[in-house]
Amino acid sequence: MVGEEERRKAAFEAGIKLGALFHQFIGAPVSFENVEILEKAMESCMRLQPYVIDAEVKIDREKLGEKLSEFEYTSLSMEMIEARVEVEVKGEKASAVLKWDEEKRYPLMRLE
Amino acid sequence: MVGEEERRKAAFEAGIKLGALFHQFIGAPVSFENVEILEKAMESCMRLQPYVIDAEVKIDREKLGEKLSEFEYTSLSMEMIEARVEVEVKGEKASAVLKWDEEKRYPLMRLE
Amino acid sequence: MVGEEERRKAAFEAGIKLGALFHQFIGAPVSFENVEILEKAMESCMRLQPYVIDAEVKIDREKLGEKLSEFEYTSLSMEMIEARVEVEVKGEKASAVLKWDEEKRYPLMRLE
Amino acid sequence: MVGEEERRKAAFEAGIKLGALFHQFIGAPVSFENVEILEKAMESCMRLQPYVIDAEVKIDREKLGEKLSEFEYTSLSMEMIEARVEVEVKGEKASAVLKWDEEKRYPLMRLE
Repeated sequence: MVGEEERRKAAFEAGIKLGALFHQFIGAPVSFENVEILEKAMESCMRLQPYVIDAEVKIDREKLGEKLSEFEYTSLSMEMIEARVEVEVKGEKASAVLKWDEEKRYPLMRLE
Repeated sequence: MVGEEERRKAAFEAGIKLGALFHQFIGAPVSFENVEILEKAMESCMRLQPYVIDAEVKIDREKLGEKLSEFEYTSLSMEMIEARVEVEVKGEKASAVLKWDEEKRYPLMRLE
Repeated sequence: MVGEEERRKAAFEAGIKLGALFHQFIGAPVSFENVEILEKAMESCMRLQPYVIDAEVKIDREKLGEKLSEFEYTSLSMEMIEARVEVEVKGEKASAVLKWDEEKRYPLMRLE
Repeated sequence: MVGEEERRKAAFEAGIKLGALFHQFIGAPVSFENVEILEKAMESCMRLQPYVIDAEVKIDREKLGEKLSEFEYTSLSMEMIEARVEVEVKGEKASAVLKWDEEKRYPLMRLE
């Protein structure tokens, strides 16, 4: 089927980017002071990677606020990270998102 | 086309696993003493993840030997990691590999 | 004062090891199936580093059980990691521990 | 001796920060495009941590240039990271640096 190989490759590349983002940055010190710069840095890392045409990262402020330690910061955790990446392989696009699923208690990644 | 959605999802899931592996473990202290246990731990992490039916990790001993510091160990680096993962989504399988590409100077991940 | 420089250096080296351990491994996929091999791999990484004479890592099974996702595993999180490291610099020893402090909501590292 | 305990604790805290920085960020995608934002994010993470009064991170542009892949970026590697952190514990300060040591082939961390 025309384009199927490219669509599979686009899906594969989108998966790489979300897996990489999560495991690179989880654990990073974060507070209301540096949350924006951390989001921007995380996005910038995704945008460098092959086939990426767009990337967006959001750290959930409400969950961040709930997790703050006595020292007014915490470690970036799986509940807080939201991301979307769009990739394109020879004209075939794939878009994928990462978002905490409260019911599954899992940082779910899925193709849109 | 029958199964295309599942094939795309299988490719996506394979990508997640390789991206995750690389970015979780790069930087880990490694020498000839703990290289086997580190490989086993890395494989064990891949096998836990959804849809994975097989996973294999090899750390290149030759490159490890070349990179050792004066303290007889080094940090796991992108040149050294080789991995293969096989996933299955509703009967559709995908297999993907991670291997250093000397010409591209890049830890290339690709679907097989 | 005799040995003060070595005691400071021993404390510094102990700090490096705990900071490294936490930020290298947080996020790793973990379940009751691979918790032992992950602990062993984490310990093996600490033991390779300069001045380390002993290292111990425990992942809290109770917290692990509480955090499991629908997929029967989770990501290694700051609440679960306990570690002790002993270093020696020119005869001066330092011992340090990492343990979740529920009151401070913080993975506290301290010299013993 | 007056202040010795605080000096040891300051050294310990400085060690934690350098160990954490290295193992959190090694592996992050980096190029000339995002090197500054990555440095700023890394510094911001250090500044949040207890007792830190100053922090500076430099990624070596020359080594970055040498390591670029065919895709015009690379993974942040141990040769490229330079950092300095200053901490203060009850009036006692400690300053520590991380810098690649070419002879030892090692990312050396030391108290100043």
